[in-house]
Amino acid sequence: MEENITHIVTHLVLQLAVILVAAKVAGELTERYLKQPSVLGELCAGVIIGPFALGALSIPGLGVLFPLPHAAHGAAIFIPVSNELWSVAQIASVVLLFVAGLETDLKQFLRFAPQASVVAIGGVFFPFVAGIYAPVLMGFTDNPFDTMPLFLGCVMTATSVGITARILGDIQQINTPEGVTILAAAVVDDVLGILALTIVIGIAETGGVSISNVALVGGKATGFWLALTIGGILIAPYISRLLLKFQSTGASLALALGLAFIAAALAEMFGLAMIIGAYSIGLALSGTELKERIMEPLESLFHGLVPIFFVVMGMLVNLEAMTASIGLGIVLTILAILSKVFGSGLPALAVGFNRIGSTRIGIGMLPRGEVALIVAGIGLARGVIGPDIFGVAILMTVVTTFLAPILLVPSFKSGGDGLTKH
Amino acid sequence: MEENITHIVTHLVLQLAVILVAAKVAGELTERYLKQPSVLGELCAGVIIGPFALGALSIPGLGVLFPLPHAAHGAAIFIPVSNELWSVAQIASVVLLFVAGLETDLKQFLRFAPQASVVAIGGVFFPFVAGIYAPVLMGFTDNPFDTMPLFLGCVMTATSVGITARILGDIQQINTPEGVTILAAAVVDDVLGILALTIVIGIAETGGVSISNVALVGGKATGFWLALTIGGILIAPYISRLLLKFQSTGASLALALGLAFIAAALAEMFGLAMIIGAYSIGLALSGTELKERIMEPLESLFHGLVPIFFVVMGMLVNLEAMTASIGLGIVLTILAILSKVFGSGLPALAVGFNRIGSTRIGIGMLPRGEVALIVAGIGLARGVIGPDIFGVAILMTVVTTFLAPILLVPSFKSGGDGLTKH
Repeated sequence: MEENITHIVTHLVLQLAVILVAAKVAGELTERYLKQPSVLGELCAGVIIGPFALGALSIPGLGVLFPLPHAAHGAAIFIPVSNELWSVAQIASVVLLFVAGLETDLKQFLRFAPQASVVAIGGVFFPFVAGIYAPVLMGFTDNPFDTMPLFLGCVMTATSVGITARILGDIQQINTPEGVTILAAAVVDDVLGILALTIVIGIAETGGVSISNVALVGGKATGFWLALTIGGILIAPYISRLLLKFQSTGASLALALGLAFIAAALAEMFGLAMIIGAYSIGLALSGTELKERIMEPLESLFHGLVPIFFVVMGMLVNLEAMTASIGLGIVLTILAILSKVFGSGLPALAVGFNRIGSTRIGIGMLPRGEVALIVAGIGLARGVIGPDIFGVAILMTVVTTFLAPILLVPSFKSGGDGLTKH
Repeated sequence: MEENITHIVTHLVLQLAVILVAAKVAGELTERYLKQPSVLGELCAGVIIGPFALGALSIPGLGVLFPLPHAAHGAAIFIPVSNELWSVAQIASVVLLFVAGLETDLKQFLRFAPQASVVAIGGVFFPFVAGIYAPVLMGFTDNPFDTMPLFLGCVMTATSVGITARILGDIQQINTPEGVTILAAAVVDDVLGILALTIVIGIAETGGVSISNVALVGGKATGFWLALTIGGILIAPYISRLLLKFQSTGASLALALGLAFIAAALAEMFGLAMIIGAYSIGLALSGTELKERIMEPLESLFHGLVPIFFVVMGMLVNLEAMTASIGLGIVLTILAILSKVFGSGLPALAVGFNRIGSTRIGIGMLPRGEVALIVAGIGLARGVIGPDIFGVAILMTVVTTFLAPILLVPSFKSGGDGLTKH
């Protein structure tokens, strides 16, 4: 037991060392020579050093650096890294979204909340429809309302707020009208996505939908999110004043992080993603004096921790698993891009953005990231989808996730105002 | 699998939130009202919220926040927190010792290295002798060279460089002659302690000592440590220049952390503690431009992470287990204090320190901390000591660990020069 845990910790520390070095080297190369955001380099580094590539090789005297974990109780392995590494990566994502929340201009966020809701609905509806008809189109099934196509629809609706928040933060565009709309829409998307998933799991397990169950899950998630956000905004000045009373070094930072972690854990318990809780509490504290005080030290933490999340995201990519149903994969990926860009972009156009702004919003909603992977993993674990459809979902996720930074940066650099109509 | 890991991560995030809040509240109270270093408050917070006290209570709707982990393969549970939490705490200790190394004045360290070696030898020899004779004194055994007393001797030799480094850092006394002597002696102590443990395990398993095995283990550990420290000092200017070439934000910090993690993992693989590797690489980089650049952001990381280590240390305390052999426990604890304070203090007196300086060094070497717990855990896992002797070792560790900050701060505040003889 003792030697076992010592070994686990040593192995984790070695993994983190390799991840940090790989992240920074790849990030630097990507920025300097490819003129692309460093997050793209970090994702690629993860693919290269991960358990499906170099990480699986045995190093003399060290063994395998990133071995696939053993499946417990005969369950399918969904997350191909150790619990410890996955935990560190998830903590990093919580810090990422907390910082994104702190950096958001609350007034601007509230101003664009209605537009964001419309964008989110479009960004959920069209990808869902595309997801359930894609397997029909490719001859995998006749009925788009079978559990498999329904599940694929859920995977398609996901939006990875992590990727977008990181890029928007890096290029300092979080507080543009498009920036806040994307972040707010991604939050609403998460709530809607959970509702869709609840419905589909209900159908898969009982063959029907229980309206009361959907209402319960939806009410719980929405109610908690509204309570956290509104309550947080109301008591933020008091929290700020209380935390600034602490005089010991670093206390306000540690306490603020503690708050973010509590909000994240509560969000998960109420059926939302952890990152939604972290973002909401960050948003609530964004206008306070506390934010001014903790922002600089928090950014140091950010740079040391957040790259770990993106490298681990890259590690989830299993290129081999994608090739199994490559035809459906390509069709689904194209549909995923079109349905999200137009599904979010057209509503944006309808609520006041011009073509430049709507394009930015459509692209910003594009990456599926870890949210889609987690949904697909649930499907695989419950046997609703097989390894082939899982591979297809991964392909779609990877392409949309890698495409987002490549497209988003130029879309913000060229153009200009995304609101004014000509 | 998927829901399982999500649950693990949520639970960990909630634990970290509670730990951070408890650490900072307790630290603030300790500093402000008890005028004691905050590390003492953090340790106490750990005892109170840990798995042997409040943490074991079931919270409605949440369950048990700090449950004891299930023992794998019928092994004894030595570390009473989850692998994930223990991993985070260990990473924190690596950061702590890396910062302590960076803050050490290398010239001063080398100047006092000979004195420190003498102090370390005394600080290992006397506690070891006290440890093997205490059970004889109390009638537990007749032979001080039985495996149980020998093991207790090993537990007694440990020095927790973590506790001392934290306190010396907090009161800015790392670079006094006493400060560097304590840190260097603690490092040498770790090497000597590993040799002693190797010998005792050899006796326990084969009934005798293989000189070649001891030479191998000792040579490996000493050789690695010397190579890391001397090699590190020689190439530090090049490492500094290379890392400062990276332009992306936070790259130099993340890369330096990566280096520290690699050194820590390698140290563990060569039979040393991780923290020794982290300290040595920090020491090597202490005079470079890189240090100037990363010190400020690193301190933010320090304040967010290091308290977690001390709260988790407090969580290891099981007051109930200590009461089983309370008589031996009290005797052993008194011997632990006397043998370490005089065992390190008298050699210090002999190598040029005055009484004030020698007292500081003796107290600085006092805390056994996590090192003793790990050694005791090995003994328990191998069946060399029973739960009663384990409880005794814990009592000794807890008292010396809590006593150190209480005594060390006043010893540095009063007095003055620890070298000049009157």
